[in-house]
Amino acid sequence: MNNKRMGQATIRFERPPRVRAWAAVGGKKEQDGPLGSEFDKLFPDTMCGEQTWEKAEMHLQKVALGMAANKCKLPVEALDMLVAGDLLAQCVASSYAARSASVPYLGVYGACSTMAESLALAACMVDGGFAQRAGAIASSHFCTAERQYRFPLAYGGQRTPTAQWTATAAGACILTPSADDQAPVRITHACFGKICDLGITDANNMGAAMAPAAYDTIRTLLSDTGTHPGDYDGIFTGDLGLVGSRLLCELFDRDNIDISKVHEDCGKLLFDQSQDVHAGGSGCGCAASVLCAHLLPKLADRSYKRIILAATGALMSPTSVQQGESIPGICHAVILEAGGKG
Amino acid sequence: MNNKRMGQATIRFERPPRVRAWAAVGGKKEQDGPLGSEFDKLFPDTMCGEQTWEKAEMHLQKVALGMAANKCKLPVEALDMLVAGDLLAQCVASSYAARSASVPYLGVYGACSTMAESLALAACMVDGGFAQRAGAIASSHFCTAERQYRFPLAYGGQRTPTAQWTATAAGACILTPSADDQAPVRITHACFGKICDLGITDANNMGAAMAPAAYDTIRTLLSDTGTHPGDYDGIFTGDLGLVGSRLLCELFDRDNIDISKVHEDCGKLLFDQSQDVHAGGSGCGCAASVLCAHLLPKLADRSYKRIILAATGALMSPTSVQQGESIPGICHAVILEAGGKG
Repeated sequence: MNNKRMGQATIRFERPPRVRAWAAVGGKKEQDGPLGSEFDKLFPDTMCGEQTWEKAEMHLQKVALGMAANKCKLPVEALDMLVAGDLLAQCVASSYAARSASVPYLGVYGACSTMAESLALAACMVDGGFAQRAGAIASSHFCTAERQYRFPLAYGGQRTPTAQWTATAAGACILTPSADDQAPVRITHACFGKICDLGITDANNMGAAMAPAAYDTIRTLLSDTGTHPGDYDGIFTGDLGLVGSRLLCELFDRDNIDISKVHEDCGKLLFDQSQDVHAGGSGCGCAASVLCAHLLPKLADRSYKRIILAATGALMSPTSVQQGESIPGICHAVILEAGGKG
Repeated sequence: MNNKRMGQATIRFERPPRVRAWAAVGGKKEQDGPLGSEFDKLFPDTMCGEQTWEKAEMHLQKVALGMAANKCKLPVEALDMLVAGDLLAQCVASSYAARSASVPYLGVYGACSTMAESLALAACMVDGGFAQRAGAIASSHFCTAERQYRFPLAYGGQRTPTAQWTATAAGACILTPSADDQAPVRITHACFGKICDLGITDANNMGAAMAPAAYDTIRTLLSDTGTHPGDYDGIFTGDLGLVGSRLLCELFDRDNIDISKVHEDCGKLLFDQSQDVHAGGSGCGCAASVLCAHLLPKLADRSYKRIILAATGALMSPTSVQQGESIPGICHAVILEAGGKG
C-alpha cells in the first residue's frame, strides 16, 4: 500500500522532505517594509539593472535561486528539477529565468498561490524519489503585474481601498530528502486546494475572492490532520490582505473556530500601512519572499516549531474579467516544522 | 533508497502508473482531418455553444474530462487531483474548467508541451502515492490562441509557410495505480525537459525553436534507458510540424542516429496538408488530442507495444517576443506501453 493521502485531500509525507536553503530578494518598497532587513538582497532600482520590467522580474528569480543554491554550496545545475511560476502571461518570468539553468523545468501556474504550489509539488517530487534536490521558486513584480492586469503605469490609475499592492520580490527554496539532517526545516504535509468561486467579479478585491479558498483548504488540512489552530505557531495566508483576512476569520467563526490568535497574512506582514499599499501586499513574490525572508528563518532558529503556509491565488485573467467572469480562488497549503534529526 | 532517477534525468516508475481512460474532443478542422473519426466528440461550431471562444475552450476541457471520467464510471469528483494547462494568459481555460470539478487542482504551464508535462506529473503523483486517481488535461483553441499570440481574427492576417495551426481540441487522461489491471496502458518512464534556446526569434517558426529541446529530451531518454529508436513503435513529437520535424531528424543524423523511420509528429498527424495548415498543427490541444484520439487506442488494442510521447513547447509570450527575446523551447516526454497484467 502506497497511499500517502489522509482524510479528504491531505498528503502526509512519511519521510518529510527538507528545506535545505532559501533566499528572498525584493525591491525598494520591500526594503522599506517591516521585513526589509530580513531579505537576502534588495534592488533599489525597479529595473534591477535590466532593460525592461519583465527582464527585471526574471533577474529576481535568477538571483534568488542562485543565492539559495549558493547557500547549499551547489551550482544551480546540480538540482534535479526546478518548479517555478509567476503571474505573467505564459509565465515568462519563470521560463526565461530557468533558461540558463540547464535543469529539468516544470512550469506551474497558481497565481499568488504559486509558492505553496511549487513547494508542495517539489516536496512530492523529493518524497516520491523523483528528485533528490529540487528548487521551488515564485516571483512577481509590481510594474509587470500592473500593466498585465490593470493599467499602464504611466496612466496613473487610482487604486480602490480594497486593492492590494503586488510585491516586487522572489523567493527560492532548495528541497532535499528527509535524511538530510543539515536541512533545518521539514515539510510534513501538503494540501493541494480545490477551486472556490463565490461569484466575486471585482478584480480590485482579490482578498474577498480568495478568502473562501483559504478557508476551504485550511479547514481541510486541520480536519484531515486532526489538529487545531492552537497547534501551530502561526497560520500564514498569502495574500488575503486586510479585507480577505477579516473574511477568513469570519468564515472560521461560523464553525466556532477562532483562528485569529494564530492567523497572519503575508500581504499584511510584507508592508506597513504607512506605505500606501491599501489592503496589503499580493503577488506570487509576496508569499514567496515572506516565506524565505521571515518564516523559514524563524523555523530554522526554532522561534517557530510548526506553521502552516496557505498561499492563495486568484485565477482570473484580464480577458476573463473583461468577459464578466467571476474570480476563481485557490489555496495550496503546506505544514512546515522546525527540523531536527530523523 | 528511494531514488527513481536513472541516468541524467529520466524517472523510472517501478510500479508503472496506468492510463485507465481517456477522451479527445475537437473542432471542425479536426473533424475534417485524418483523425476526425477517432475523436470522442467534435464541435462543428467554433463557439461550442458558448458566448466566447475562451468559454468554448473551457467547455472543451470540461467535456473531455467528463467523458474520460465517464469511461471509468466515475464522477469527476472522485478524482484525487487534476493537473491541467493551456496556452492562455493565466491559464484560464484550465482554471475555469476545473472550477466546477471540486477536485484538488494543479495548474501547469508548458505551452504545447503541457499534455506531456501534466501526464508525467500525474504519473509521479500516482506512483508516489499522493493520488490514487489523477486527471491530466490540456487544451487549445485556434481562435483564443490567435488573438492571444498573433492578430485579431477579423484582421485576416496572412500566415507564413513556417507557421503552424493551433488545434481546437482537448485531451484528458485518468491515471490509476499500477495494480489497476483494467487499465490498458502503462507509463513506464518520464523525462522532464530542460529549456533549450538557440536564439530563434520568429514566433511564426516555432518548430525550429522547439526542435533542439525535442532532440535534447529524446536523446536523454534514449541514453538514460539504454534504448534505441528501433525499440519503439513510434516516437511522437508534438508539435514540431514539418519544419521542426525535419530539423529534429537532422540533429539526430549528426549523432548517426536515424529516428526518421519511427518518428512522427502530432502536428503532422492531426491535419492533412490539403487543409491549409502550413507547417502543421500545434497548441496544447494538438498533442493532447492526438494522444487521446489516436495513440492511446493503438496501445490499448496492442497495435503499438511501446511508444514515446515527446511534447514540445515554445515558452515565449507576446510581450517577450515584442521585447526582442528569443524563444525558449522545452520538451517533456513519457514512455507508454501496452498494458497487461502486473
